[in-house]
Amino acid sequence: MEQSFLAWLRGRQRTLPQVELGIGDDAAVIHWPAESVIATVDTIVDGVDFKLHEHDRASIGRKALAVSLSDIAAMGAEPVAVLVSLQLPKEQPAQLAAALYEGLLELASEYKVALAGGDLTVAAAPLALTTTVLGALPAGQTAWTRRGAQVGDLVCVTGSLGGSILGHHLKFTPRLHAARQLARHCSIHAAIDISDGLSLDLDRLCAASGVGVELDLMQIPIAPAAFELSGGERAEALEHALGDGEDFELLLTMSPESFDIASTLDLGVPLTVIGKCVSRTGLWAKQGGKLHRLNPRGYVHGAGP
Amino acid sequence: MEQSFLAWLRGRQRTLPQVELGIGDDAAVIHWPAESVIATVDTIVDGVDFKLHEHDRASIGRKALAVSLSDIAAMGAEPVAVLVSLQLPKEQPAQLAAALYEGLLELASEYKVALAGGDLTVAAAPLALTTTVLGALPAGQTAWTRRGAQVGDLVCVTGSLGGSILGHHLKFTPRLHAARQLARHCSIHAAIDISDGLSLDLDRLCAASGVGVELDLMQIPIAPAAFELSGGERAEALEHALGDGEDFELLLTMSPESFDIASTLDLGVPLTVIGKCVSRTGLWAKQGGKLHRLNPRGYVHGAGP
Repeated sequence: MEQSFLAWLRGRQRTLPQVELGIGDDAAVIHWPAESVIATVDTIVDGVDFKLHEHDRASIGRKALAVSLSDIAAMGAEPVAVLVSLQLPKEQPAQLAAALYEGLLELASEYKVALAGGDLTVAAAPLALTTTVLGALPAGQTAWTRRGAQVGDLVCVTGSLGGSILGHHLKFTPRLHAARQLARHCSIHAAIDISDGLSLDLDRLCAASGVGVELDLMQIPIAPAAFELSGGERAEALEHALGDGEDFELLLTMSPESFDIASTLDLGVPLTVIGKCVSRTGLWAKQGGKLHRLNPRGYVHGAGP
Repeated sequence: MEQSFLAWLRGRQRTLPQVELGIGDDAAVIHWPAESVIATVDTIVDGVDFKLHEHDRASIGRKALAVSLSDIAAMGAEPVAVLVSLQLPKEQPAQLAAALYEGLLELASEYKVALAGGDLTVAAAPLALTTTVLGALPAGQTAWTRRGAQVGDLVCVTGSLGGSILGHHLKFTPRLHAARQLARHCSIHAAIDISDGLSLDLDRLCAASGVGVELDLMQIPIAPAAFELSGGERAEALEHALGDGEDFELLLTMSPESFDIASTLDLGVPLTVIGKCVSRTGLWAKQGGKLHRLNPRGYVHGAGP
């Protein structure tokens, strides 16, 4: 199956200027526009990250790429190429692979990401998609990390949070456009994408930077889906916004001056200040004028039932 | 499990000069020494490419990387970084992951390959290891492809072939050293690594280049393991050399003048001329002064047991 499928895939891929040699040889050759490679790998698996028999196949393929593009956005980088490995169950693997690639390649085309590798394995195993995305930094820019948050920074988030399980986790837009605008015009001190839940990912950013954060719980943008899950009840919806995984929004820290600039930009998505960085480490919630310690909660990989 | 394992892994990784930012952020940042990225992805799965309950775990981890390094060698490139995604079964995934990484990181260290990503998934599925290796071409060199074989080229192979299943498939040396020497001193017209069997991979090289090959069957270097499988019988051992997969030797074409230079180099492995490129397409076997058509046979992915 592999050779004929790869022949189909070669025909399906758009030619992009960065591709010196596409898939079909021992390796691909990608012209590299920068002095660094930003690289990330993610695997999504049936039953954990999607449901093969419930979800649209193109959406599953799209998600595999979108998850990695979100990581590239969180570095302030531009995606250049993707390598894909599919682990296919034994029933009609070629049809399944083609349907997955439809969604993946459509998103790749939207962001001009070249397909630089496509391995296939057929096994008595659930469907799994592994994507490695390679990105580059625009000239003169350095990568955003989790480490650079400074006391006095504002903590900002794109979009709205919570209830991703109702559909957002399959359909989200990786925040590459917003990242590009912010990288160009502002000085971002630290960044992370929210994959495991706001409070958990914010806690990681704090730990890496050696700062704490005072969150203003009233300012957290709660997604309509979080209200839908909570039956309209705000406190419970807020819990979803704090703890649900797979928002794939950007969590950023920057100076108040940078935020003033950011708020004039066309990011394609709202940017909301939800707190500030403080010297006392840990997460602190400000509610009704009082501060209380917030325990990070969210999706911990491999901890589950 | 993921966070504590990644913390362990961060401690385990050697610091290499190309690593600007190692694993543990949204993505890694690798300083890039060249104008192109050579990229390849491979997945190996329990029951297909190894047997978890028979084989040493470090050897399995080593193989995952070695398979991709072999592809990089077949492009005439140098490996720079690897991203790894492990799909772990549910019994003691952390111990298993650590044992796999022992073998993988030892080989990475040998070739100064940086770990640029490490995703973990625990699933009700067989163990699977996906490795994406990024390589670079030495200054002034172009990538070897399958396409460049010319009529009159000699067809050469490193090492000896066949019977890999007796152990070579887990313990092979990716031919990076030989590739480096050949890239530096010779003009290689076409190259492929033998992963699915000599005749099948040679047929692919011929098809990509639009040439045929006359193989001298008496010259094919047969591995001792192939004789072991055949009970010492030469004709059957030759069949193993022609059709067995996972030799991970280099198959190269070059001019007779380049071969004269190659034969003076310290490649760390024998280099044997096994045939020549001809204009009549297809694979032809020369035996006892006669030519007969050779049907490619080898391991076809997804073609079933």
